[in-house]
Amino acid sequence: MKISKDTKILIIGLGLIGGSYAKSLTEKGYFVGALDTDSNVIDYALKNGIVKCGKTLPTREYIADFDLIIFAVYPHTILEWIKKYQQFIKGNALIFDVTGIKSCFIYELQEILRENLEFVGAHPMAGRESSGIENAAAEIFLGANYIVTPTEKNTAGAIETCKELGKILGFSNISVLSPEKHDETIGFLSQLTHCIAVSLMTCRDMKAMAEYSGDSFRDLTRIAKINDEMWSELFLLNKDKLLSQMDLFKNSFNTLYDLIKSGDREKIQEMMKLSTRERELFDLAKGD
Amino acid sequence: MKISKDTKILIIGLGLIGGSYAKSLTEKGYFVGALDTDSNVIDYALKNGIVKCGKTLPTREYIADFDLIIFAVYPHTILEWIKKYQQFIKGNALIFDVTGIKSCFIYELQEILRENLEFVGAHPMAGRESSGIENAAAEIFLGANYIVTPTEKNTAGAIETCKELGKILGFSNISVLSPEKHDETIGFLSQLTHCIAVSLMTCRDMKAMAEYSGDSFRDLTRIAKINDEMWSELFLLNKDKLLSQMDLFKNSFNTLYDLIKSGDREKIQEMMKLSTRERELFDLAKGD
Repeated sequence: MKISKDTKILIIGLGLIGGSYAKSLTEKGYFVGALDTDSNVIDYALKNGIVKCGKTLPTREYIADFDLIIFAVYPHTILEWIKKYQQFIKGNALIFDVTGIKSCFIYELQEILRENLEFVGAHPMAGRESSGIENAAAEIFLGANYIVTPTEKNTAGAIETCKELGKILGFSNISVLSPEKHDETIGFLSQLTHCIAVSLMTCRDMKAMAEYSGDSFRDLTRIAKINDEMWSELFLLNKDKLLSQMDLFKNSFNTLYDLIKSGDREKIQEMMKLSTRERELFDLAKGD
Repeated sequence: MKISKDTKILIIGLGLIGGSYAKSLTEKGYFVGALDTDSNVIDYALKNGIVKCGKTLPTREYIADFDLIIFAVYPHTILEWIKKYQQFIKGNALIFDVTGIKSCFIYELQEILRENLEFVGAHPMAGRESSGIENAAAEIFLGANYIVTPTEKNTAGAIETCKELGKILGFSNISVLSPEKHDETIGFLSQLTHCIAVSLMTCRDMKAMAEYSGDSFRDLTRIAKINDEMWSELFLLNKDKLLSQMDLFKNSFNTLYDLIKSGDREKIQEMMKLSTRERELFDLAKGD
């Protein structure tokens, strides 16, 4: 499938990411419909021209109209929804998602999916500290990374369409990882960093600290404002891989702790030099 | 002393912070001279109009001209310098610094200082990942915090002048802490955050990670590009207080680790809710 202005796109779940997908695609002239259990959200999206149509309940009549369906809901919701309502989906439709973890549901989903439907996982590496459609913005995808996570069940054509969607949304780097490798990578880059920010923000009495803070503390804790419902689910669904990444960080932090305790300035500086070299690669990748 | 356009200000050490002080004060029309052991740095500062005069060696003739002296050098350098050269300083001159730790040298310094000189500690909570005068900029102080750390030896007048300097430089929040409380606070807000960033950046193989990274990892590791000479000195001079703050963070991180391991979603969410509330106070303080 080639995504065109005739492609009817359904976004299921108009939160921050689903809402931003909808805004971006509508602004670019694509046909976007929505499904969200909250009628206020649908009203808001219709009133603000973010979607062309919207419903709170899936009916055959409504769902069967769409060629491309994108799930932007909590991981556990996708499986339930597919079990109940995949009967309504048009034959040969493509289904994508935006979920932050993959291996815990993607194989089961592909197992139960009808023969003439295809699901390709995708993870837009973008977000904000504030959730909800009111905070949605097309710009959050610009300059960001987008990871497609195909399995052996996927066709080259569907994988290509999933990448194409990333290009349309304006991601600057589109890459491919297996679901397992994705979950390990995200356990490190995204989940571990949120664990660190939350731990730092809650480790002591913070009274008056804001008056003395520099940018470093603000930067490290920006993501400490966190959607607890979503992230606790993501953490637990990726538990083993996340705990492994937390172990790696603990070891490294303990090493630095011991070096400071023993006053080994040379080894501390070695660690800092490695840190500086590694971080410079990220600046290059970002182009700044 | 009231800082006026007639006040002759000497900055010792034209690195990132000393250079930014010089740029800011010169731009505002104050008389700024410099002392730096590197003749290239002095040449650069003179050629770019950052200072009115500059020398690489302290002579009585040069030093005795200044009313206000600001040390922007490594902590251990301040004491050595004062021991050797305080004889050159004009009577009733004021001396400030910009150092990131205080209690390890401030009392000794005030002990050995001539009767007719006064030293007041100050810590501008601003910086950049790149050091050196080429990266200096007056803007880094705008919206930032400035902490004055007086002792019982300081007079109300000199403390006031030190605060006034912070106002002239454009800091948005000027506060006062004892040297001990300052070191504990900075051990948490600044040194611990650098320890975390360095540990995170060096905890595993980073190959290709930049392609998959989101903003959260980039934000948490911005300060992982670190001046290893300066920070290793700061860490070790504040060792006990830093280790205590590292312990607090370790406990908090281990708590979250155990909650994830045991799958206690409710307690994870509680921790995230606390984290979110605490972080919101920082947004309020910053005015965003």
